[in-house]
Amino acid sequence: MKNKSLAILMRARMASPTHPVHRQQLLHPDRPPLPPQVPIPICGFQGATCSGDADDDGSSTGARRVSLKDVKELMRASFSIPTDKTEPMDANLEEFSQAYLGLSQEGRRELLLGLARDYDVNRARVCELMRQYLSVELPHSIDSNAADVNQENRVLEDGGILAVFYRMERNLRDALKPMYAGFFERLNAHPGGLKLLTVLRADLLSQLAKENVPSLRALETYLKEKLITWLSPASLELHQITWDDSASLLEKIVAYEAVHPIRNLLDLKRRLSEGHRCFGYLHPAIPGEPLIFIEVALLKDVATSIQEVLWDSPPTPEFEATCALLYSISATQPGLSGINLGKFLIKRVIHLLRRDMPHISIFATLSPIPGYMHWLLPKFASQIKLSKLETEDMKHFSEKGSGSNFIEDLLLPEEKEMILSGYLKWLQSGTASEIEFDKSECMDTREHDSGKDVMEIMYKLLTSREWNKSDILSEALKPPLLRLCARYILKEKKRGKALDVVANFHLQNGSMIERLNWMADSSDKGIEQSGGIMVNYVYRLDRIDEYAQSYLNTGHIHASSSLHQYLEDMFFLAATLTDECDHGSNL
Amino acid sequence: MKNKSLAILMRARMASPTHPVHRQQLLHPDRPPLPPQVPIPICGFQGATCSGDADDDGSSTGARRVSLKDVKELMRASFSIPTDKTEPMDANLEEFSQAYLGLSQEGRRELLLGLARDYDVNRARVCELMRQYLSVELPHSIDSNAADVNQENRVLEDGGILAVFYRMERNLRDALKPMYAGFFERLNAHPGGLKLLTVLRADLLSQLAKENVPSLRALETYLKEKLITWLSPASLELHQITWDDSASLLEKIVAYEAVHPIRNLLDLKRRLSEGHRCFGYLHPAIPGEPLIFIEVALLKDVATSIQEVLWDSPPTPEFEATCALLYSISATQPGLSGINLGKFLIKRVIHLLRRDMPHISIFATLSPIPGYMHWLLPKFASQIKLSKLETEDMKHFSEKGSGSNFIEDLLLPEEKEMILSGYLKWLQSGTASEIEFDKSECMDTREHDSGKDVMEIMYKLLTSREWNKSDILSEALKPPLLRLCARYILKEKKRGKALDVVANFHLQNGSMIERLNWMADSSDKGIEQSGGIMVNYVYRLDRIDEYAQSYLNTGHIHASSSLHQYLEDMFFLAATLTDECDHGSNL
Repeated sequence: MKNKSLAILMRARMASPTHPVHRQQLLHPDRPPLPPQVPIPICGFQGATCSGDADDDGSSTGARRVSLKDVKELMRASFSIPTDKTEPMDANLEEFSQAYLGLSQEGRRELLLGLARDYDVNRARVCELMRQYLSVELPHSIDSNAADVNQENRVLEDGGILAVFYRMERNLRDALKPMYAGFFERLNAHPGGLKLLTVLRADLLSQLAKENVPSLRALETYLKEKLITWLSPASLELHQITWDDSASLLEKIVAYEAVHPIRNLLDLKRRLSEGHRCFGYLHPAIPGEPLIFIEVALLKDVATSIQEVLWDSPPTPEFEATCALLYSISATQPGLSGINLGKFLIKRVIHLLRRDMPHISIFATLSPIPGYMHWLLPKFASQIKLSKLETEDMKHFSEKGSGSNFIEDLLLPEEKEMILSGYLKWLQSGTASEIEFDKSECMDTREHDSGKDVMEIMYKLLTSREWNKSDILSEALKPPLLRLCARYILKEKKRGKALDVVANFHLQNGSMIERLNWMADSSDKGIEQSGGIMVNYVYRLDRIDEYAQSYLNTGHIHASSSLHQYLEDMFFLAATLTDECDHGSNL
Repeated sequence: MKNKSLAILMRARMASPTHPVHRQQLLHPDRPPLPPQVPIPICGFQGATCSGDADDDGSSTGARRVSLKDVKELMRASFSIPTDKTEPMDANLEEFSQAYLGLSQEGRRELLLGLARDYDVNRARVCELMRQYLSVELPHSIDSNAADVNQENRVLEDGGILAVFYRMERNLRDALKPMYAGFFERLNAHPGGLKLLTVLRADLLSQLAKENVPSLRALETYLKEKLITWLSPASLELHQITWDDSASLLEKIVAYEAVHPIRNLLDLKRRLSEGHRCFGYLHPAIPGEPLIFIEVALLKDVATSIQEVLWDSPPTPEFEATCALLYSISATQPGLSGINLGKFLIKRVIHLLRRDMPHISIFATLSPIPGYMHWLLPKFASQIKLSKLETEDMKHFSEKGSGSNFIEDLLLPEEKEMILSGYLKWLQSGTASEIEFDKSECMDTREHDSGKDVMEIMYKLLTSREWNKSDILSEALKPPLLRLCARYILKEKKRGKALDVVANFHLQNGSMIERLNWMADSSDKGIEQSGGIMVNYVYRLDRIDEYAQSYLNTGHIHASSSLHQYLEDMFFLAATLTDECDHGSNL
């Protein structure tokens, strides 16, 4: 029966990969969800991002339609509760939950706005308490900043004034809580409430993606903080997902696997059988549905392509394995976006595997680089534009240097030559007919300014998404794509952290960058996102804490010598690029 | 094997009911704990109270002794972590946990004091942020107290000034967190950390019972708040405990059952078999050890004594049961004292039983009255003293009225007569030899001031703890003990809530007081605590929320007419006391 249910699911998924989240699922969060409309675009590191399609639950056609006014009334009723937080009001919360899920997207927006504005911080009370606080003399000795305080003095003070401060601070902490804090707390304590809170947050994120309303942003931020507390790793249960698990749980794995979609039943079974592991974090309040899960392959060596992990090779006998390859992490709740459960999951899984399989000594990932092309293509485009402008300038004014400060040659001379000759060979081979290339123009450019034009050729090839089908082009583009990829991962930063989200995720968890793998993911998605390149991040057990700390403190990225060589010795590099996978690698 | 392990435990428990908590248990919180030195004195409603014997873990003789300085260093190290809270530092926390548990009680006290004082709120920063906050003009329209605000206006304001307030308030919330907050959060995220946090809190409570140090109190209060958040019912898993559970879990039930101690293996098995249920709340971070558990008997009628529930009657066939009797709730963690998990557990269990057994319509308790004698005996003592003083006054000055305002006749005239005649009968029966009673004095008193002297007789009888062994005395004391018990439960309040902790617990959960049961717990403990009386609280499914709310809001106690009649019609009552169990009862 399990297999049948899965098979049906598989068929549904294959036939219609974009079918919407059904309204029933949101109304009955304990029922297995169908796959979300857009497979949640994560690479297992940042929680699911919000799809922005929350209104696709078809709520406006729901059987039970509740007016916004009614829902507001239910919400209001749930606030008229004694302040000591001992609830009752279960029935009320239940009704609110049902009614909220029955609202249209516009209704939800208005309700959330009402919650954010009408149940905000009581600012009059906050101001009053602050004035009171500031009016009390703060003796130097109890200022906690004064480290060199005489211990005796402090003990003496302790009895009197300090107790006053503790009380005032407790009152202030209470007063600074928005009034909706209590509503969130009651919802969380209510069966099914945690799930609804994730729906509220998903709705908030989806609204905020459209318009930045400060009060909604404050509501979202506060809810996120509370969710982080409630979903602390201590409250999550690590569960090994196997072929013996229920079909309802396994179908969620199929639905939410976002990194390497599961093709069919056989694919799923393989990922749960000999030589493989799958672990999920379950929360008692959201039973039968992992919040996040990780897939692991047990291998002899660190894999260089996802094909060999998923489909090509027969599984390694487990006793021969020396490497645990973490090849996929997927989060399942759009409302938990930005709440990083993955780092705890990785740590727990490594701990568990080490305990159970002492012969495994290498813990590595085979990870996508989801932001690489997204960064590279605009860079090429703007450079092409700039160098065109400069050429114009030169023609008109015969002046030099205008704008040239912004121009950066993205390609090395050797790379340009390789690209150009590969390109010409490809044109001559006759397979290039599908793409619009002006052959004559290309031939011309060779003489005067090949820099700009080779960039343009490479840009056109990359955007055409046809280059990887030709061995000639692929070989020609390999050196610059690998070198620029190393630069992207190692050097491109945002607020001092790696720009690439997956890189940032693994680096903050204490890994190092070990190796770039050419044509490691030759799927359409792989080519489109990262030119088919994948990275091995390695978790060195004795260095995890050290690496995480130095990355978090200073932004320093630990990487193998092979990674650095892409950047350090460019001429040497260009000559040795073809065997980069073996050079200086620790694997 | 399970049975053998349990049998060994039982023997150990019987032989030495006060053996200390072994140090190994605290060092290895994942190992099954042995019973605590003093069975945790709860009646299943308020979490375990702290035993105050935390130093009995024998730490000073431990094999691995760490200096306080070292432990402080470890704590300090765990604070030098980047502010974005993405930890590493697991090894450090592990070492800290081990080292803390190795400290003597005095060492722990000093460490906790250091934590409370050196990692307190940064008051300079708080003051700075407050001055900044107060310097920003607060437009009337965004004061959330102003309910009649024009919506349009608010939308306009929203973009500007409101965002500033949200930011300042977020910063203030952060600044008002003591620095040790981060330490607690990291500990909670660390495997085994939640358990250690409960040990820290137990130590704090035990220290605070000895001396009220404001900084330790503030630390305890803050930790309690965090524990309430982390142990929200959403993170707890309801588990039905059965005879098929592991011996290690069952031995915890034996060790922690504090209301009606489990006598032997047969007793335990009976409580888990046909006609009975046992449910516990488990937390993923403290596996195999329920934080609190409840025992239920399925019966035809609401039981009137604990003897019939536990030992006398054969179990009711489940299909004939109409009543679920909640007869015991026990908490297991002294460090969770005051964190009321019981109310959620009761609600969940009632919900579950209703779903699975629709023929059960009555949900009642058979509860102890742990504070009754503790309240009654001092009351008698002071009244006796007062009336003695008045007699003296009258003798010396022949004046009337001095001090008589404080004198309250605790007994009704009819009750006095019954007690006196019963007492005399008992004296004549010859079984009274063991207690020192001056017969001649008693005979004398009959003539002039029987009030004072009958109170004295009753007081002596109650404190002698012999009265219940005589049918004559027992019958004579029954009317006043039942009437005063009704007064204690219905009228004696503390901060507007029932003085008796068990009464307060069940009333705030939405129950009503249904019936007092004479000689319902004839164990030594039952006689000593409550004169052998027990109460049935009834949870009326359609009224739970209503009753809870009115009790919480106004302190109003819902009780059956039989309860009220003890107080309302005292003369009528005195005549009908003998059949109080049937009178006006809804059962």
